Amino acid sequence: MTQIVPVILCGGSGTRLWPRSRASKPKPFLPLIGDETIFEATLDRCAVFAAPMIVTGVAHLPHVEAQLGDSEARIVVEPQARNTAAAIALAALRLPEDAVMLVCPSDHHIGDPAAFADAARKAAALAGEGWLVSFGIEASAPKTGYGYLKRGEPLGDNGFRTAQFVEKPDVERAKAFLADGGYDWNGGIFAFRVGKFLEELDAHAPAIAGPAREAVTKGREQGRLFHPDADAFADAGSISVDYAVMERTDQAALVPARMDWSDIGSWESLHAARDKDGEGNSVRGRAELVDCRNVLVESDGPRVSVIGLEGVVVVVDGDEVLVTSMQVAQKVGKLDGAANQ
Amino acid sequence: MTQIVPVILCGGSGTRLWPRSRASKPKPFLPLIGDETIFEATLDRCAVFAAPMIVTGVAHLPHVEAQLGDSEARIVVEPQARNTAAAIALAALRLPEDAVMLVCPSDHHIGDPAAFADAARKAAALAGEGWLVSFGIEASAPKTGYGYLKRGEPLGDNGFRTAQFVEKPDVERAKAFLADGGYDWNGGIFAFRVGKFLEELDAHAPAIAGPAREAVTKGREQGRLFHPDADAFADAGSISVDYAVMERTDQAALVPARMDWSDIGSWESLHAARDKDGEGNSVRGRAELVDCRNVLVESDGPRVSVIGLEGVVVVVDGDEVLVTSMQVAQKVGKLDGAANQ
Repeated sequence: MTQIVPVILCGGSGTRLWPRSRASKPKPFLPLIGDETIFEATLDRCAVFAAPMIVTGVAHLPHVEAQLGDSEARIVVEPQARNTAAAIALAALRLPEDAVMLVCPSDHHIGDPAAFADAARKAAALAGEGWLVSFGIEASAPKTGYGYLKRGEPLGDNGFRTAQFVEKPDVERAKAFLADGGYDWNGGIFAFRVGKFLEELDAHAPAIAGPAREAVTKGREQGRLFHPDADAFADAGSISVDYAVMERTDQAALVPARMDWSDIGSWESLHAARDKDGEGNSVRGRAELVDCRNVLVESDGPRVSVIGLEGVVVVVDGDEVLVTSMQVAQKVGKLDGAANQ
Repeated sequence: MTQIVPVILCGGSGTRLWPRSRASKPKPFLPLIGDETIFEATLDRCAVFAAPMIVTGVAHLPHVEAQLGDSEARIVVEPQARNTAAAIALAALRLPEDAVMLVCPSDHHIGDPAAFADAARKAAALAGEGWLVSFGIEASAPKTGYGYLKRGEPLGDNGFRTAQFVEKPDVERAKAFLADGGYDWNGGIFAFRVGKFLEELDAHAPAIAGPAREAVTKGREQGRLFHPDADAFADAGSISVDYAVMERTDQAALVPARMDWSDIGSWESLHAARDKDGEGNSVRGRAELVDCRNVLVESDGPRVSVIGLEGVVVVVDGDEVLVTSMQVAQKVGKLDGAANQ
């Protein structure tokens, strides 16, 4: 049986759930849903596989170490952020060639971990055959914020060849994809056989593969940490694994994953993922709601009283208070407060 | 020329503008509009008349004394709150019989002080003739929260006999009053010749007049303070001057007053009285508003960021945060926070 090694990517700048998430403590390290942090839930979900490898920057390392619990994880400390292709390359170069790496962002919520594990095993089976596998997230709405994957010919019972990668579409196209039924969202979760991934990276993105290889060769171990060489890694191209490899290989596949997924990419999607009362309200901290529906309240201290509102988010965090309608909550990142942290 | 003595009533429990106003620091003593507190603005507005007499409870006395400035005011300290008829009786019993008392709540905003002074002089002229005079506030909307005064026969150029007192009407009746045009709001501002007021109080409300008289007889002076006897005053009936006197006398008159009046009885009416930007937003404290209209923000510390909302009030005050739609802001008093101060 092939070894499945979770590779957990911990990055992010923390603007979309500002002011609860901040540059200094981004989304993965907050208990946004349930009692665990999103990172802890990711570790738990992956605990059915081999000990994970975590790729993170220096800034987030203290959070990672504080929240590892009893995980046997090894940690690759990125000298600087160079996007997902280079981050995954570092991990791949520290793993056996015949292992399957299961690449997971650390800031996604997955409500059905068993479905995740099932999809991961199917993805690993395809990866073992040499496919570069994306998880296809059920496209449940015509979202324009995600890339889409078009399903091609079936690959046994495990998945499909990826017929097409579609960048973030406009709303008309997104609606057409939904109506078609043959498209999934690209959730940024992948399975690769390590050797195959490095082959494809060498072939399609040598400007990443070369510097990453040199950074690992010249790197140094420190207990369970591994520090790639900073100068070498600085030369690596900063692009996503989708651009660098997935859209260029002719062996892209996808496994449909129906696992109650959310990237918690806005206060609206956090509200959707949370437990709610009969009026659709979700409260954390001291609050009193009167005549409210679909209201999200989050306070780290002061009591919040809300009267007669619908579809509104109220967040109190230290010296910042955010009040926004759900629908436009994605504009949070444009606020002075979020932009100038 | 008759002496006009402002009698300023300082009471109130501070729930309607909670959490900015609290039981410990109610509305009159806050700088809600402009830089002065509402009480200071009331003193200023009355400074064209004789030195005022202030009636207040022990709890608010420190605020009154701190905000008196160089006013020559005398202060009657109520042993307990017994509503307006008894409060006005205490003041009347400390004034010369031939003076005209100009009774003013301390928690109203009047945007046009010259119009107030003009109306006060007309009211004083009528009071000098023996009329018990209410200020008739322009009924600018079919409000159900106010009493209405129906104008009767003209009394020279100064005002009208009051044909009818109408308790808070339902909205259909309020609309009919507006359409009729012959009705004003009862704003709780009055002018009485002192001797006449006491005569009418003796005639219509002896259960107030008697105990008030005894409380003053047995009271004691302390510099500019006067302390009525507590035991005697406790026997005074607790009803409003409208019920006790105005609705029972056959010499009720009114002076129409068009003076940009507001009782600041809700966050909505405070917003209406405040200076606003081109989008109708009014901000006090640190705030960033994006795509907002008719939003009121008030913060004593934390920065407040608001996105994509209309007609919403956000108040941050110490350990309390209030978020409410303008329309239902009058429900603030029903919140646990406001009710259990």
